[in-house]
This record gives sequence, structure tokens and C-alpha cells, in this order.
Amino acid sequence: MGQSLIRNVDVLIVPETGECQVHEAQDIHVANAVITAIVPTGTPPPATTAASVGTPSADTTAHSAGTPPLDSTARVEVIDGTGLLAVPGLINSHTHSPMVMMRGAAEDLSINDWFNQRIWPMEVNLTPERVRVGARLACAEMLLAGVTTFVDHYFHADQIAQAAIESGIRADLAPTYFSSAGPEGIDAAIATTRDLATIHPRITASFGPHATYTVSEEDLRRTADLARAEGFRVHLHAAETDAETQATLDKHGATPIEILDRTGILDAGALIAHACGLRDTDFPILARHADRTTVATCPKVYLKLAMGNGTPIEQLHAIGIRTGIGTDGAAVHNTLDVWESLRLLALTQKHQQNNAESMPLSDILRLATRHSAAAANRPDTLGALEPGRQADIALLDLSAPHNQPLHDPRAALVYSVRASDVHTVLVAGEVVVRNRQLANLDLAEVLADARSLAHTLVDLSRGGAVQHYAP
Amino acid sequence: MGQSLIRNVDVLIVPETGECQVHEAQDIHVANAVITAIVPTGTPPPATTAASVGTPSADTTAHSAGTPPLDSTARVEVIDGTGLLAVPGLINSHTHSPMVMMRGAAEDLSINDWFNQRIWPMEVNLTPERVRVGARLACAEMLLAGVTTFVDHYFHADQIAQAAIESGIRADLAPTYFSSAGPEGIDAAIATTRDLATIHPRITASFGPHATYTVSEEDLRRTADLARAEGFRVHLHAAETDAETQATLDKHGATPIEILDRTGILDAGALIAHACGLRDTDFPILARHADRTTVATCPKVYLKLAMGNGTPIEQLHAIGIRTGIGTDGAAVHNTLDVWESLRLLALTQKHQQNNAESMPLSDILRLATRHSAAAANRPDTLGALEPGRQADIALLDLSAPHNQPLHDPRAALVYSVRASDVHTVLVAGEVVVRNRQLANLDLAEVLADARSLAHTLVDLSRGGAVQHYAP
Repeated sequence: MGQSLIRNVDVLIVPETGECQVHEAQDIHVANAVITAIVPTGTPPPATTAASVGTPSADTTAHSAGTPPLDSTARVEVIDGTGLLAVPGLINSHTHSPMVMMRGAAEDLSINDWFNQRIWPMEVNLTPERVRVGARLACAEMLLAGVTTFVDHYFHADQIAQAAIESGIRADLAPTYFSSAGPEGIDAAIATTRDLATIHPRITASFGPHATYTVSEEDLRRTADLARAEGFRVHLHAAETDAETQATLDKHGATPIEILDRTGILDAGALIAHACGLRDTDFPILARHADRTTVATCPKVYLKLAMGNGTPIEQLHAIGIRTGIGTDGAAVHNTLDVWESLRLLALTQKHQQNNAESMPLSDILRLATRHSAAAANRPDTLGALEPGRQADIALLDLSAPHNQPLHDPRAALVYSVRASDVHTVLVAGEVVVRNRQLANLDLAEVLADARSLAHTLVDLSRGGAVQHYAP
Repeated sequence: MGQSLIRNVDVLIVPETGECQVHEAQDIHVANAVITAIVPTGTPPPATTAASVGTPSADTTAHSAGTPPLDSTARVEVIDGTGLLAVPGLINSHTHSPMVMMRGAAEDLSINDWFNQRIWPMEVNLTPERVRVGARLACAEMLLAGVTTFVDHYFHADQIAQAAIESGIRADLAPTYFSSAGPEGIDAAIATTRDLATIHPRITASFGPHATYTVSEEDLRRTADLARAEGFRVHLHAAETDAETQATLDKHGATPIEILDRTGILDAGALIAHACGLRDTDFPILARHADRTTVATCPKVYLKLAMGNGTPIEQLHAIGIRTGIGTDGAAVHNTLDVWESLRLLALTQKHQQNNAESMPLSDILRLATRHSAAAANRPDTLGALEPGRQADIALLDLSAPHNQPLHDPRAALVYSVRASDVHTVLVAGEVVVRNRQLANLDLAEVLADARSLAHTLVDLSRGGAVQHYAP
């Protein structure tokens, strides 16, 4: 791994609390995948910085000797950031990346019909190859849009890992399982999590039971035991809708959150997707596990599937639970565009709180960065541009008419930016998008592969379904 | 005016009722600003087409002689549409275009503070030059995003007209007035409407009283009388929020709609912006004027300013009133992106109706085209790609990863497309955007002018305000 320097760039600073700021004309120094210093353009980085952040191989560079960056050794890649804004690479906190293959194939349907008439019947068509082709397309879409990490939940996760590794993106992967897969199916998914945990520095893994309505309490309990013993967290769906919560109460005498509690899932640590159907009694339970619980919210999906008011963000924050922003799969969200998701979250929060001052710019940017880093299970190493964190950085060009004049770059990021404004992207210090082009994937090939297989994914002629939706 | 041929393009067909369709591999023939024929690629257009749609100067072309288009005279500009989708140019049904100059300068504020602390104090800084610079930027933004017509309501409308004429966009312009401007101010605005009505084939004009809470009944009555006598329609704000409706009831014993009725505005014909605060008693009144009433809805604004559930689209449609889609000004909407607006309208309708099957793809595309053409006061000449209508056409490139694979182009248009996918745009048959570049404006100059004046618009040091918001 090398060193790089992003020169003369404006930098979005997202503090833990309080107002976000933009520091103009900065140099971002990177060594061994980590940000080592952010200093005013042209000034040498502090000599102690590299050492202090634990990157021993970087502390002998020319930078620490005080010479200007451009005069240092040829090993330093210099990226001209003039006119660009550096922001923490976005994190897609909950998705099913290969479902891009079904984009636009299940529109204007109730959640029941979406699952039972389209998606789960379509998923009988999944093969390793088709998942990999879909995942490569998803990685391409996300990287070009400034998403540097995605938190995934899907089948054939080993194939998704390969696509992520190849593309240069970072991912946390949860191999999906239903109880209907039987013990062997669950064991295979568990084994995949173990395998993926050590496969590559940019890949982490989670256990992936699908939901409390598709995985038995016995299987959830076993998952929780393994998670605690082996140090994994659990990524699953729970309380997606209030109707699900009511049905779960009717069937099991407990809410989905209570089931997660009594099976030990919350004790092990969980990323809960959606949590739109929480009851008042759920909050004290979640509060007891706030140190190890995060929630992913996907607002476009809640609007599109008419799922009600969505995740109760403010109530979750009040008990110390961080909420990351995600897209869910593109079979319902249609894009993997986290800019779109964060804008919709800000807008819907103002609407639902009946307060235009709710979810101000700095708060929504914090959710899209620091909170989402927590949802990705990397709260201390992702989600902010500061020395010691991974160099996952998106450089935006805000010069197009739809962002101009630029009275407030933070407002542009939330309310006017387009994914197409992403100019250059680094993950772990490596350039993965340069001047709007993918560095590691052949986009034409990725698209051709996806187009050639698309019909096979949406074919309903085989009959059957991977599962039936009846929460 | 010349002839053009868009060759080998897919075409979105939006019928008056029923499902939208995409007809693949078509040739769109254009003469004298009008679509003369749409036929399968390579087939000659019907010889009678040009004559039948009332374009006498076109009926002598080589096309009607039955020779293939490429063999016709050099006057025919051929645009290669291979791989592109032609859709009716979008229509921004309600905006204040020069307010792009305040983009991002009034965030996270209540509607009261937005008006009284920011926007109306800022508008004391308006000058003809600043309005023109803003309007040029707005035209640039809209054209690049496939917007071919905007329905505007603002001050110094003569300057906006010049920007529109220069850029090649089409516009309906309503010079704004308050009663506080006094008789001379109102007369000047009325005179501007008259002047603009004949200034250019692409410009139409409307009367522009601001709202029922800023224009007296006496002035509204006089406006209505002039509108009827001179054949203008009236574009104004009414029933923006339920609070406004209640306040109007308290002050005047009538709802805003009842005031529009008793002053003759509805009889004259009106485009009503927002109409979010309608009461049950308003619907029968509007129904009596459905043949001459349209409503513009701007969903992003209602979310952002926490204005409640927005325009009651379904109830208005039930009484035969067409609803166009708009952005409102960029000082609140942050963009002039009608793709964003139509997507938000589809999503929020599903949410508010608590029905994922509400506002299906074909319906939202119909609102963005035919209904919005009605809001632009050109229901018969804009809003559809069919012989006899104006050749206002956006060609989209849906080949990027976020739209692929393309199972359903209609779904892409509503749920995944970005404004940056707009490739080529024609207005009245003239190419105004070619391969994502403006044909008539120097974008660098437009942006430089806007940046250099931006600070003057948001300067609050002069004190005062153009109006006080107290509906």
C-alpha cells in the first residue's frame, strides 16, 4: 500500500455533535489506507501525525521531514482536489446488492404482492454466477455514486465478496438464511460468514438470519450463541411494519424486538433493518442494548411500499441508538443511491415531525456518515475525515448549475447534489473512481453481463418461491 | 425554421388514459417546430401527415414525396437517437426561476421564518440585472435536466423572458404583484403581461397576483375583469397551507378558493399553486370551473417546510381538475429538477393514500406530461409526443448502471433516472441541449455571472422586506 495526497481540497468536517463545517483549501495526507493528516494546503503535516495514528511504515516519509508534498518521493500519488469537496465516503447501511438485477421488475405492488408474486418467486432463479454479475453491477453503481461501504444481506455472499474485492469497495456481508433452509442451509450460511471474516481487509462479515418471521426462535438462539462465542454481530430484519409486529404478537405473544431479546440476539449485538413497527415497550429493551444495537433506515422504501411513518429516528436517538441510512435492495428502491436516501430521510423527518426545523443539515449529514459507520460495525474507523480513520473519501464537483451559486455546501449535499456530481473516490486510500470512471471494473463488460442475464432473474416460469411472506 | 429527424429512437407514449408504452425504434419527423410524424425507423412518414397537422410550409418536403429521410434535402437535421428514449420535454408547472440565486441560503426554517427572516428581506435586493442572471442560470439548469417549459411567477418578468428567449426554453410568465405595490406597481405588472404575450412564439404570459393573503379582493376583482376581457389566465398562490385557509376564514369569512370564486378569478381561469389547504366546501366550487382551472403541486416543498399532506391530488382528479408538477423556487426546493419532483409526488401519494398501488407509473408520467401541459396553459400543443404537437422532446440515455438492467423504462423514468441522464433536448424543434451541452448559452459565463452576484441577493444589511408573511 502506498501514500497519497489530495491537494487543495475543501473538506467536510462532521463532528460527533454540533454543526458540520467545511474547511477550505486543505491537504489530506494518506498512508497505508489511513488518513494521516489534514492540514492547510501546502503546509507540511505534523511530523508526529503518521506515527501517532499507528501507521509505522508511514513515519519515514518525506512529509515528516518537512518538504513540500510535491517534492517528496515518487511513491506519493497526488490527486488535485482543486474545486472539489471531500466528504466521508457514503455508507449504504442496508442493502441486498445483487437485487439490482430485478430493478424495475416489481412496481406499484403491495408489500404482500411484492414479496409473494414477484421477488421470492424470482429468487428461485438465483445462481452464484447471477449473484456475482448483479453484485458487480451494484458495486459499479455505488462506487460511481460515492458509496465506499455497503452493508449487505443476501444469498451467495461469497460471490458478493468477490465482486466487492475486485471493484475496490468495502463491504460488510451477512449471508442470508431462513429456517426453511434447514440445518444444513443454516450451517452453510454460518460457515460463509466465518470464511468471509478473514478473506480480505476490506471485507467484514455478520450473521444473517432473515427476520423474526422467517427464522425460528430456536435458530435465532443458536445464532446468538455462535455470535457471542465467535465475536460476530447479527444483521437482520425486524419490525419492518406495524402489521408484522401485531402478527408476531398474535402468534408468539411477543414483539419482534422482544423475540430478539429473549433469543439473545440483542445481547450479541445487532444491526436491525427498518424497525418501523416498534411499540412503546420495545424502547426500554433496545435501550439496554444501545451500546451494541444499530438500526438501518431506508425511507424511500417505506414511502413506496406504503409502510407508514418509517423508522422512529428521534425516539431511537433519544435512547442512544444510532441509525444508519440505507437503500435496501434496488428491486424496491430502484437505485443504490445513498444521496437520494439521505435527502428523503431529511424531508420525511420534517414532514413526520411536522417541524421544518427537524433533522437539520448537520444532523442528516451525521447520520449519513458517523451513524452509518456504526451500522457498518466500524464506528471508529469509518464515517469521518480525520487522522487515524480509513481513507474512504468521495470528492464532489459542485460546480454544475443545479448546485450553484453555492451559498452553503452542506445544503447542496443534502438537497441539491446528484450522485453524478461524484468525481473521484478512494477506498482505503486507493483510487477506485477517477474523474467519474471506475478504476477496477470494466463498466461496459459489467453492464453487458447484467443485460445478458437480466431475463433469467425475473423469469417466473419455474414456479415456486424461496419463501412465503406471511409475517 | 427547419426540419429535423430523430432517427431510431425509442418513444414514450403517454395516452390520455391507460398504460404508458414505449415504442421502440421510431423516427420522429419534425417540421416548423411541430412533430409531423412518428413512424418505425426507416419507413417514410405518411405523405399527408405534414399537411394534416397544419404546417403548410412543410408539405413540400422530400418526406411527403416518399423518399427515405436521409436522402431528403440538406435542410433536414438528423439526430441519431440510437440507444436513447424520447420523452415529452418536462414542464415545470410552478416556479420562481431567478430564486436559484438564493439556493441553500434559507435552510431548516419554518415557513414563517423562511419568508420573514430570509426570502422577503432578501428580495429587497432584486434588480433587473440580478433577476436576469438568475433566470439564465435557471434556464441552464432546467434545459440540461430535460425541462422544456417553465411556468414562472416572479418580479422583473421581462428579464426572465429575455433569458428564456436566449436559452431556447419555453416559458409562461406571470409578473408578480402584491397590493402593497400600489396601483402603479400593479399596472406595471399587468402591462408586462400584455407586453410578454406577443414578444416571442415560445413565450406566453399570465396575470400574476401573488396570493389571496397579499392581494386585496378589490385588486383580485380588477385582475379577473382584465383577464376575462383580454383573454389571460391568472397564475397565483392559494390555500398553500391549512393554516392559511383557517386564517383567511377568520379574517374574511371565506376560504381562499371562495375568494377566488367571488372575485371572478376562477371564472377567468386560474393556475393555482399548491392548494394544500383545501376544505370540503372548496371542491364543488372548483368543480364548476374545472374546464379552466389547473393546480400545480410541488411535493418536495411540502415535505421540507412541513406543510402537511400536500395537494389532494386524487380529490382534484375526481372533479376533473388537472394537476401539473412543479418545483417552486430553488430557495426552498434547492433544485429545478422535475424528475425529482415527479418521483417525490409518486412516493408521497403512495404514503398518504396508504396504498402502494396508488399513483402507478403511467399516472405519474401522465401528470408530468399531459397534466403539466395543461398547467402551462398549452394542453393541446405540449405534453405528448404525437403529430401536431410542438416538438419539445428530451432524449434520455438510460445506459448508466443506476438504470440497468432496464426491465421497464417507465419505472426507470419514475424511480431511478437522474437529470444527468438527459442527453439531448429540443424545444419547438430546435436543439437546445446536444450531448449534455447547452446549445445557446455559454455555461461558464452563466455560472460566473451567478457566482459574482450571489452575495448581493442574500445580503440582509439593507433591512426591510418586500412583504410580510402573515396569511
